[in-house]
Amino acid sequence: MITLIKEPNHVQEQPTMRLASWTGVMKRSLLREMLAVASRPGILSFAGGLPAPELFPAKDYAEAMAYVLENDARALQYGPPFIRLKEHIVELMARRGVACTKDQVFVTTGAQQALNIVARLLLNPGGQVIHEQLVYSGLQQAIAPYRPEILAVPTDLSLGMEVADVETHLANGSQPAFIYAISEAHNPLGVNLIHERRQWLIKLAIRYGVPIVEDDPYGFLHYDEEPIRPLRSMDDNWVFYVGSFSKLLAPALRLGWMVVPETLIPQLTVIKEALDLESSALIQRSVAAYLDTGRLSSHLQRLRSEYRLRRDVMFTALEQHFPDSARWTKPSAGMFIWVELPAHIDTVELLWTAVDKAGVAFVPGIAFCAGGSPVNGRPVSTAASSLRLNFTNSTPEQIEEGIGRLGELLDHYS
Amino acid sequence: MITLIKEPNHVQEQPTMRLASWTGVMKRSLLREMLAVASRPGILSFAGGLPAPELFPAKDYAEAMAYVLENDARALQYGPPFIRLKEHIVELMARRGVACTKDQVFVTTGAQQALNIVARLLLNPGGQVIHEQLVYSGLQQAIAPYRPEILAVPTDLSLGMEVADVETHLANGSQPAFIYAISEAHNPLGVNLIHERRQWLIKLAIRYGVPIVEDDPYGFLHYDEEPIRPLRSMDDNWVFYVGSFSKLLAPALRLGWMVVPETLIPQLTVIKEALDLESSALIQRSVAAYLDTGRLSSHLQRLRSEYRLRRDVMFTALEQHFPDSARWTKPSAGMFIWVELPAHIDTVELLWTAVDKAGVAFVPGIAFCAGGSPVNGRPVSTAASSLRLNFTNSTPEQIEEGIGRLGELLDHYS
Repeated sequence: MITLIKEPNHVQEQPTMRLASWTGVMKRSLLREMLAVASRPGILSFAGGLPAPELFPAKDYAEAMAYVLENDARALQYGPPFIRLKEHIVELMARRGVACTKDQVFVTTGAQQALNIVARLLLNPGGQVIHEQLVYSGLQQAIAPYRPEILAVPTDLSLGMEVADVETHLANGSQPAFIYAISEAHNPLGVNLIHERRQWLIKLAIRYGVPIVEDDPYGFLHYDEEPIRPLRSMDDNWVFYVGSFSKLLAPALRLGWMVVPETLIPQLTVIKEALDLESSALIQRSVAAYLDTGRLSSHLQRLRSEYRLRRDVMFTALEQHFPDSARWTKPSAGMFIWVELPAHIDTVELLWTAVDKAGVAFVPGIAFCAGGSPVNGRPVSTAASSLRLNFTNSTPEQIEEGIGRLGELLDHYS
Repeated sequence: MITLIKEPNHVQEQPTMRLASWTGVMKRSLLREMLAVASRPGILSFAGGLPAPELFPAKDYAEAMAYVLENDARALQYGPPFIRLKEHIVELMARRGVACTKDQVFVTTGAQQALNIVARLLLNPGGQVIHEQLVYSGLQQAIAPYRPEILAVPTDLSLGMEVADVETHLANGSQPAFIYAISEAHNPLGVNLIHERRQWLIKLAIRYGVPIVEDDPYGFLHYDEEPIRPLRSMDDNWVFYVGSFSKLLAPALRLGWMVVPETLIPQLTVIKEALDLESSALIQRSVAAYLDTGRLSSHLQRLRSEYRLRRDVMFTALEQHFPDSARWTKPSAGMFIWVELPAHIDTVELLWTAVDKAGVAFVPGIAFCAGGSPVNGRPVSTAASSLRLNFTNSTPEQIEEGIGRLGELLDHYS
């Protein structure tokens, strides 16, 4: 029998590609993987941070888009940021209680890009960042390539970020590149930062010369009393406000904005240009044309009223079906409820069981855990036994059904 | 008389914001500033890298967009990369002579973002990059935050990048993160890298284990014989091919792609997600719908025939109006002609005079100059007395008129 040998002497060993060092500690996106599981057909999913597609102003936006493509010769070409859009953003900011000018508005390709731009402007490799122990995973991803030292601070589920811990870090001589805050409808916790803490945070920012990045994707989605004013309304020099059309209109627009310290616009422009040259003129002009119609207000009314209903249905279902030992936040805005279960329940394990046995999905709390050390000897959070529920992307019927099934499953855990 | 004094004792000195160190060496975008000058009304501009807006397939694309907005429920929502678009990109790559699968295709928010993604994957702070002395300024901007060591290599205006100098760097022990190449219709030089040098470059990449980033925004805009095959067609493991719809369809789509070593897709996905979550589903789906109509071929025919005409008109006008001492490249593809003037002419000064006196604009050569040291004792380029002319964004009449006026101006310099 003849065995073919593949000329081993001639096989040159192929060198391996050298990747940048930080990729060695690159985390897979746990959140994305869980979302992939959650999007299996037939699953009732409270996992994603998705708005309700049936509420998109698709018809009105299609009209605006058609108008722009037919009448605006510059809609498909390269071009500078669209002034009319900036003017609309100034009006939007006024609704949020923030006075600004169009020269302080900086258009971005979604809020996620805004986080990247600010990180590139402020953060050195190995530099420090202050953010909460439980925080939007996209912020963690945006700063990961810098291999930053995270100064993590806890969050009070009623009052918001523990600003006292921020002060401790700063008083101890830390020089963070920035403090990251989601002052309204925190993701994943659903809590608002109370007014007194906002004032305190602003004072710290000014005293220690540390900018604040205020991420506000949900500020327009409020369901009870009018929300209190953003950090940006309290100071123009130290706050980078980040806004987004993703939840206001639709995620696929990939359009966001910042309101920034005006003197930094030239640097921000260079950074933005390096990242993607510019944000789509077509999207900027079609969104401006939609806003020109004045239909945003009624659209927002509709969004709020429908999301309020869904939130309330979820509250009721949680009361009815979840064990007494569970507690959850009562967000007045945004898209998420944070649920803490008894400490012995591992919500990652629970997820797989929930998907398999109950056809229900959520995001386990650990998906939002920052590295970062605890401060002042306080224990790290109870994230491992917590979960995040989205209430905007399911119908009231689906919410009742899904929370019911989850509750039934939890009966076996108590 | 009472003078009001503004309580100087109470004025606390405001701390200055600390920016990331690299911003200290941040270059303003000279190119952008010059383009701003060039876009003054009434200026005949050969400056920008703009396609001809009158050739955009605006009507056909508007139909595709309207169709998608009316019929595709996922067009406005978050979503994974659109498979149908990837399939179209596989077909496009086949037209360029590259065999690939949709699993090797990676959708990006324009080619500029692709350069960022690759830099983030491969480049360490302070790492080395090999690129030409004269090179697309967007590449320089994408890597600037890493404060890289540039190993610059010269370019032969007929044969393309001096691969011998690449080899010298590698043989001397340099370990660059990647080699950047614009193999077809180089920006700004308009030269193609000849086949033998492509093969040589690929051999070096494999032997030394250094990836190549092949930037190919103009590969579909060829005007003479069929172009030779891209680097990517010669190797799947070491070439990151970067493509763009900006010149193929329209820049405002902000849609591009990469064809990559397939094993790196998970890392690229995490990096992309960190940068902007995802590229617009609306744009991906509307472009795919446009490509579904099969109208791209005739659109490309039309683009090529019109751009060929404009290029030829510019060739003729240069022959007729420019001094004998000038020489220029004869690109068979792309959007730019590179003109070298006698060494005593400073083309930055010339630009201001040309704008003021002749109402004509171009980009001075130094806008494309990389830092980087010369290799093998060769002199740095003649960029200071060179200029880049765009021939795609002016009508034949404007080209004749503008080149005529420039030539007249140059008569005063000889």
